[in-house]
Amino acid sequence: MAGLSPCIDEALVARAAEVVAGLKRKQLTLVTAESCTAGLISAALSQAPGAGEVLHGSFVTYTKANKAMALGVDLFVLKSQGSVNAEVVRQLARGALARSPADLALAVSGVLGPEPDVDGNPVGLVYFCCCHRHEELRVLRADMGQLPHDTLRREAVLQGLAFIDTCIER
Amino acid sequence: MAGLSPCIDEALVARAAEVVAGLKRKQLTLVTAESCTAGLISAALSQAPGAGEVLHGSFVTYTKANKAMALGVDLFVLKSQGSVNAEVVRQLARGALARSPADLALAVSGVLGPEPDVDGNPVGLVYFCCCHRHEELRVLRADMGQLPHDTLRREAVLQGLAFIDTCIER
Repeated sequence: MAGLSPCIDEALVARAAEVVAGLKRKQLTLVTAESCTAGLISAALSQAPGAGEVLHGSFVTYTKANKAMALGVDLFVLKSQGSVNAEVVRQLARGALARSPADLALAVSGVLGPEPDVDGNPVGLVYFCCCHRHEELRVLRADMGQLPHDTLRREAVLQGLAFIDTCIER
Repeated sequence: MAGLSPCIDEALVARAAEVVAGLKRKQLTLVTAESCTAGLISAALSQAPGAGEVLHGSFVTYTKANKAMALGVDLFVLKSQGSVNAEVVRQLARGALARSPADLALAVSGVLGPEPDVDGNPVGLVYFCCCHRHEELRVLRADMGQLPHDTLRREAVLQGLAFIDTCIER
């Protein structure tokens, strides 16, 4: 098996380890709710030393039907406004906190391309929501532009991780 | 951004794409319930062409508390028998199907090391469960041995993907 590249790129794993260390310092546990990143934020975090003390898990809600059924996102909102907007990431984050023992939730929903999504949202548009259990939630909108698919995936993971840092340092 | 390695190793993504193609041929949709792989199976599947027609998402239940709260796994079983056994992967798969519109669930729970888990399960022990909504579920136990952490992660992802193939071809 020698010579194989790592399952997840080492730069992402290293950045995730910094976030896990920050959560440990603050004694906060995390759950993620991931649409476009599909579990990659959770998987990267899980590789950090001590991840088991910090990461409860993730709800990957790739389809609209699963956003509604697994996390209780309002189907009317999904059908009328699509999956990539502030309201949906808010509902994803709240839904994850309601179904997990975690202190903090990070939600992400966006369009990584190569095509716009079925609702016409442009490639590179990504919304994040970070939410402490007992505090007001924060939403971040990123317009990353029409970059290659894997570059957008990387940026979505990195910006999601950075947003956790921002939210726990406030 | 040129020259960056891909977020997820290309061999895993290529194997996941074969599984997505197989699910499409069978017109089956999938949800995963991932403990030790922490979302990596879901993330790899999501990169396949047409993944949005096949993959509903994933429940990543990294801690025991989250296995119980997110997927309804029996806490008594988790406390008395640990997280890595046939009964827990059965409950993970059933819990995921009950909370998702998917036709098929793949659950995985194991010890990727470098240390045995808190219940004394050895490094390299991984259980999988694959379950159609209306059929009997199937459990697979793998003893992968004391391999490096990232090698075990890769093997857990690949064996999980292969188990989906096996279950849909029956």
